Amino acid sequence: MITLLSDFGLDDEYVGVMKGVILATHSQARIVDITHRIAPQDLVAAAYCIRSAYRYFPRGTVHVVVVDPGVGSSRSIVAVKLQGHTFLAPDNGVLTLVLEERRADEIVRVSNDRLFLKPVSRTFHGRDIMAPVAGHLSMGLQMDRLGPGVAAEDLKRLPLGKAGFNVDGDLEGAVVLIDRFGNLITNIDSEKLASLAVKSGDRGIEIRIAQHRIAGLSQSYADVSAGAPLAIVGSKGFLEIAINCGRAERYFEACRGDTITLSVGSTKTVPDANQTIQ
Amino acid sequence: MITLLSDFGLDDEYVGVMKGVILATHSQARIVDITHRIAPQDLVAAAYCIRSAYRYFPRGTVHVVVVDPGVGSSRSIVAVKLQGHTFLAPDNGVLTLVLEERRADEIVRVSNDRLFLKPVSRTFHGRDIMAPVAGHLSMGLQMDRLGPGVAAEDLKRLPLGKAGFNVDGDLEGAVVLIDRFGNLITNIDSEKLASLAVKSGDRGIEIRIAQHRIAGLSQSYADVSAGAPLAIVGSKGFLEIAINCGRAERYFEACRGDTITLSVGSTKTVPDANQTIQ
Amino acid sequence: MITLLSDFGLDDEYVGVMKGVILATHSQARIVDITHRIAPQDLVAAAYCIRSAYRYFPRGTVHVVVVDPGVGSSRSIVAVKLQGHTFLAPDNGVLTLVLEERRADEIVRVSNDRLFLKPVSRTFHGRDIMAPVAGHLSMGLQMDRLGPGVAAEDLKRLPLGKAGFNVDGDLEGAVVLIDRFGNLITNIDSEKLASLAVKSGDRGIEIRIAQHRIAGLSQSYADVSAGAPLAIVGSKGFLEIAINCGRAERYFEACRGDTITLSVGSTKTVPDANQTIQ
Repeated sequence: MITLLSDFGLDDEYVGVMKGVILATHSQARIVDITHRIAPQDLVAAAYCIRSAYRYFPRGTVHVVVVDPGVGSSRSIVAVKLQGHTFLAPDNGVLTLVLEERRADEIVRVSNDRLFLKPVSRTFHGRDIMAPVAGHLSMGLQMDRLGPGVAAEDLKRLPLGKAGFNVDGDLEGAVVLIDRFGNLITNIDSEKLASLAVKSGDRGIEIRIAQHRIAGLSQSYADVSAGAPLAIVGSKGFLEIAINCGRAERYFEACRGDTITLSVGSTKTVPDANQTIQ
Repeated sequence: MITLLSDFGLDDEYVGVMKGVILATHSQARIVDITHRIAPQDLVAAAYCIRSAYRYFPRGTVHVVVVDPGVGSSRSIVAVKLQGHTFLAPDNGVLTLVLEERRADEIVRVSNDRLFLKPVSRTFHGRDIMAPVAGHLSMGLQMDRLGPGVAAEDLKRLPLGKAGFNVDGDLEGAVVLIDRFGNLITNIDSEKLASLAVKSGDRGIEIRIAQHRIAGLSQSYADVSAGAPLAIVGSKGFLEIAINCGRAERYFEACRGDTITLSVGSTKTVPDANQTIQ
Repeated sequence: MITLLSDFGLDDEYVGVMKGVILATHSQARIVDITHRIAPQDLVAAAYCIRSAYRYFPRGTVHVVVVDPGVGSSRSIVAVKLQGHTFLAPDNGVLTLVLEERRADEIVRVSNDRLFLKPVSRTFHGRDIMAPVAGHLSMGLQMDRLGPGVAAEDLKRLPLGKAGFNVDGDLEGAVVLIDRFGNLITNIDSEKLASLAVKSGDRGIEIRIAQHRIAGLSQSYADVSAGAPLAIVGSKGFLEIAINCGRAERYFEACRGDTITLSVGSTKTVPDANQTIQ
């Protein structure tokens, strides 16, 4: 099985062409699209996306990530084996979050050009290098046939901010993604939330975004009335800020990178649900 | 075979993740997307979409509909067997039109959590419940293994308006969908059109939308000149209002819910094709 | 294997329904989307798209092109065999570029209505005619079973401009497509570029678009600094105008049809990279 994740969009033939090349290499390959609508060259969004998605596929899956602003330059293409999954991506940091969670079992630089489509273009390595290599990997080709080994610490990483406790003892994170429903997905995971919950005891947790405050975590969108804001541990395992039947992005005029602060609740909190929707 | 219909869009990894879970359950499943671009939480659009689409798939297909504003609340998920097809959807009315046409052979409430992905999130039952259950159904799991039976009359229904004859004897319906080409799709079916045709004899039919009038039904878009409006029985079996090589939505400034009235034609009719395009 | 290319978009169920019909005809068919986001009725874009894409699929693939403004009129549907690929499309010129490059081995008019879905609608031949016929072709049905032969010169062609040398000896072409990244794709191919290169010797080539000038061809986007324009032979084998990490469409305020002129370079050239970005 092969998954594809790219910023190619669906307007052009690029994704279809990659599938043609994969199937010309391995006619029985099963190909699943993760998404092709990563914003052009948005490595951060792609890094979060592949991290969230890969674990739901069967072991043995080959995940191809083609968000590649440096195509045609000297950047490498690498293959990474980890937890039974194989990742094929440019060495531009797009695998930062995958590698942060788990230790890679094997990493190689893809350089064996006998596997490539000829002539290799300077602008579409997804088609000319990654598609045929993915086809071969899905047929069981060994990693060491692709090229020389690479040490994990030599791979490029994206400088992604991490959530953590600040000097006031508040838990501080950021909006890292905004999804199709306008939900704000943060980098604050369940584990950190649990540490804060221990500190708060029965006083609860207060969530702040810009001048807004949300009192406590909800268990489901429907816990609050339609149009009201809520904070919830989303399906990706991270804190999300949402509006029941609405768009948090618009409500909070939020952008990626906005700070989210969580502190031990106080009785003075006026929950945002009672404020006028802007 | 499994079809997927949702409001997830294609920007995020949600659809890909559902496919991963299905394939991790049943590696040989064939998955076909109906669409994932239902407007967020638009149950009416989803109801029309699944009704139009399912009949073109082979019997034995499992149709998964994930438009689910009540995810995480107490709403049930149900499986419905009908005409050899199996539907898996939240019990929120999204199957109203499927059930209006045909009697269900079997309906169960999906509650056997041994089939679910654990832990079940509160926000993504498409992934945690519906995907693995669809995988099992596509492998032949019997419906009664999913949970207890439910009576058809206990399922939630959407209050969808129906076309019908008004006191003046005119046939009155509404625009229920607007498609990618800007065509206005109504809830007036061929059968009702036939009743009106009997009444009109050789005087023909006149179609009114807002202050516009269209004289008679066309057999194809090309029956009128480019830029001219027409009424036609569309591929879904319903009356559609279109502009040859143009967008009826824009021409008529039409919205979902707008009234369409059909009456027996008069000789005074000035067909809209001769009016200036606005 | 079957590929699909259409202007149906992904908002409605049309593409899913075509796949249902194909799979109901041939349950083992493998279906790959090239794109469904051709602008409505844009035959020129579809013609370039299928020309670029088909060659990357294995021989034996059936390519279905449903961009069909004349659906329901007297236009024919044709099947064309060429280089081991089979194309199924309305006879409206959408195969112009495929047929310009290679001689067709066999062309038939699709008229054997025993293969069609009944009743055949007047508005969705993709579903009622092309999908089942594609299913049969993918199972090995012979072309002559579809209908009578047609001569290549009787097929409709689109009047597409060609790049060529003008009276001043300059190579003149046009922007024929703008892709998702805002790159301007021209109709100037490598062969014509090579003729110009022979003329220019060591004086290099200058590319003009509107009042802008670009000095020389680049080998990759990264050859110029971020935000700077470049000209490059793209992955489709044609000259493309791009902005490294930017959108050429916006930078040059370019439209499809804009003229691109290439001439032998002069030392007076001020490369555009030094101008202010507008």
